[in-house]
Amino acid sequence: MSGFKYALLQQDSDSQARRGRIYTQRGEIDTPAFMPVGTLGTVKGVLPEALKEIGAQIILANTYHLYLRPGHKLIQQLGGLHKFMHWDRPILTDSGGFQVFSLGELRKITEEGAAFQSHIDGSKHLLTPELSVEIQLALGSDIVMVFDECIPHPAERSYVVDSTNRSTRWAQRCRDVLPKGSQSALFGIVQGGMELDLRKQSAEQLQEIGFEGYALGGLSVGEETSLMYDMMEYSLPLLPTDRPRYVMGVGTPENLLEGVARGCDMFDCVMPTRNARNGVLFTSFGKVSIKQAQYRDDERPLDPDCQCYVCRNYSRAYLRHLYTSKEILASVLNTHHNLYYYQQLMAEIRQALENGKFTEFCRDFYKKREVLTS
Amino acid sequence: MSGFKYALLQQDSDSQARRGRIYTQRGEIDTPAFMPVGTLGTVKGVLPEALKEIGAQIILANTYHLYLRPGHKLIQQLGGLHKFMHWDRPILTDSGGFQVFSLGELRKITEEGAAFQSHIDGSKHLLTPELSVEIQLALGSDIVMVFDECIPHPAERSYVVDSTNRSTRWAQRCRDVLPKGSQSALFGIVQGGMELDLRKQSAEQLQEIGFEGYALGGLSVGEETSLMYDMMEYSLPLLPTDRPRYVMGVGTPENLLEGVARGCDMFDCVMPTRNARNGVLFTSFGKVSIKQAQYRDDERPLDPDCQCYVCRNYSRAYLRHLYTSKEILASVLNTHHNLYYYQQLMAEIRQALENGKFTEFCRDFYKKREVLTS
Repeated sequence: MSGFKYALLQQDSDSQARRGRIYTQRGEIDTPAFMPVGTLGTVKGVLPEALKEIGAQIILANTYHLYLRPGHKLIQQLGGLHKFMHWDRPILTDSGGFQVFSLGELRKITEEGAAFQSHIDGSKHLLTPELSVEIQLALGSDIVMVFDECIPHPAERSYVVDSTNRSTRWAQRCRDVLPKGSQSALFGIVQGGMELDLRKQSAEQLQEIGFEGYALGGLSVGEETSLMYDMMEYSLPLLPTDRPRYVMGVGTPENLLEGVARGCDMFDCVMPTRNARNGVLFTSFGKVSIKQAQYRDDERPLDPDCQCYVCRNYSRAYLRHLYTSKEILASVLNTHHNLYYYQQLMAEIRQALENGKFTEFCRDFYKKREVLTS
Repeated sequence: MSGFKYALLQQDSDSQARRGRIYTQRGEIDTPAFMPVGTLGTVKGVLPEALKEIGAQIILANTYHLYLRPGHKLIQQLGGLHKFMHWDRPILTDSGGFQVFSLGELRKITEEGAAFQSHIDGSKHLLTPELSVEIQLALGSDIVMVFDECIPHPAERSYVVDSTNRSTRWAQRCRDVLPKGSQSALFGIVQGGMELDLRKQSAEQLQEIGFEGYALGGLSVGEETSLMYDMMEYSLPLLPTDRPRYVMGVGTPENLLEGVARGCDMFDCVMPTRNARNGVLFTSFGKVSIKQAQYRDDERPLDPDCQCYVCRNYSRAYLRHLYTSKEILASVLNTHHNLYYYQQLMAEIRQALENGKFTEFCRDFYKKREVLTS
């Protein structure tokens, strides 16, 4: 593995928060960072140029979906995912595990891997650690994630033990199969459910294998938010300080802030994009459901404090009109705004860290919402 | 009416084709021109900035749809349609007649106007010439169309006689109700079905009333293409040379070329936008149905001769993938390309006219398709 490096630029003195920078062959990523989700080789409704304008330095793509449609071999043949989707900045790919395990009845786990049936046509497949890495490399991923099991919550301790141990063995197989000198970084994923000792064991064993970065998996799976924060607080300090730390599938703006405070560098979540398509928009004063009748004749921008393309040029009334009329531009504009909100939030967090004002930033963040929504 | 002017720049010597320029308070329109359709205050899937990049100098908005949703009074209160949809170039509004008459059972015509039920909620409305103009002015339309009946085809001559006479009386009522000194131009619409003498009578009577421009209505309603061309060929020369001529609801690239050859200056049609959403794309070698399996691994741009954003950055394989995956970006990219194709066609037609090469252009246009599709 070459071309991948993490530089810790600044450690906050009042919290675990830290500012850093990831260097890849396809560009730098300032951390803490949020990665928009581009499931099928497109961040739904947003052009790559708009993603750049918004400030996205990396996006996430889903191995499971691209494996089934249009197929990793086709994408490889066409020059890789970056070229296919016209995105030249870094791409992190998940391992496909999360989607496969979400299939419930349609999948079966063995030591070898996870047998599953496609949600599209019912065809049968076996996803193994080796195949997962093969797919991710074929896509041309800059950051490859190990194949692991995302343990449901709640779960019996005995199941968590077995699953976590298996995920560690799978992580080793992923490490073994990634060619030396690959341009792609490989991240391990800490599992262990909500069991502290198993989280610790997982974190330690993964570090023995050695990865370019470490993620926390199995969070945001239905547990109480306070428990998720506790797991972050306990697990993140178990990871090496000289590698990026990524909490997978998280979360709300509040979750990001709390994750950063506990030492996380990277996040991804469908929340800003999926919510946008459902007309739920993030603002400096909290969430807005744009379909509400109160916005019918509201000529103000969605968020007067927001400098995004949407807030500079359109009214709440227009956004409501587009949404209630089921216009394509509703998804386009709403997603643009929500992703801008997320990127802007991360940029402000980084700025606050740089200025040594992260604690004040958090306080103001919560205060503003209280004032404006009361 | 002020601020509106048509300048005939060049009359082709071998055909009725002509090059001109329309001046409005919101900018110039080079003719022959194609107007993208933005039914509900948005050209589906295309941002206003992209429309400009594509070269659109004017768009069309639908009075019927905007009257029902979100309502012309709301749009007026919010500063007009241009501000509402963030489009500062000219907008032509139709009269709502075409949509109302398309409602079939749901509408009833009297001398006063057309009573109809909303296709959205079944509510009852009466659209009159006066209300149509009122709505269009409230929207802030730059070019207001008279309220008329689009006669179905085929139709009994007696019906065509009655309808055409009524449409002429309605046109007079529209003229009467448009305030002197309005910034909006008013266009008359020649009806008369497929009856030559009635077309002539309509054209003459409308000119007696006097309008800033003249349209041909009631074409592209299911008649043979050759009959449509015959009607254009007969009717367009009946109109004054110093006013723009607009054939409504037309058409295919071939139709535009043939319309220009017969003296038409303006066109509108949902074809490029609607086809795009259905995966049917216009190219220099004819139509392409992008969902076809042959494009699965086709790394070429959709149209190698096209310089649009889509053809510069994406492959046929990617466009097929987006379409078969029902991704939002499929509509966005497909519509962008199709509209570019239409705008580019008109630009090339204008250039050919300027160079005195229109006849050659038409010959090459047809020849290229023959060669490339054979």
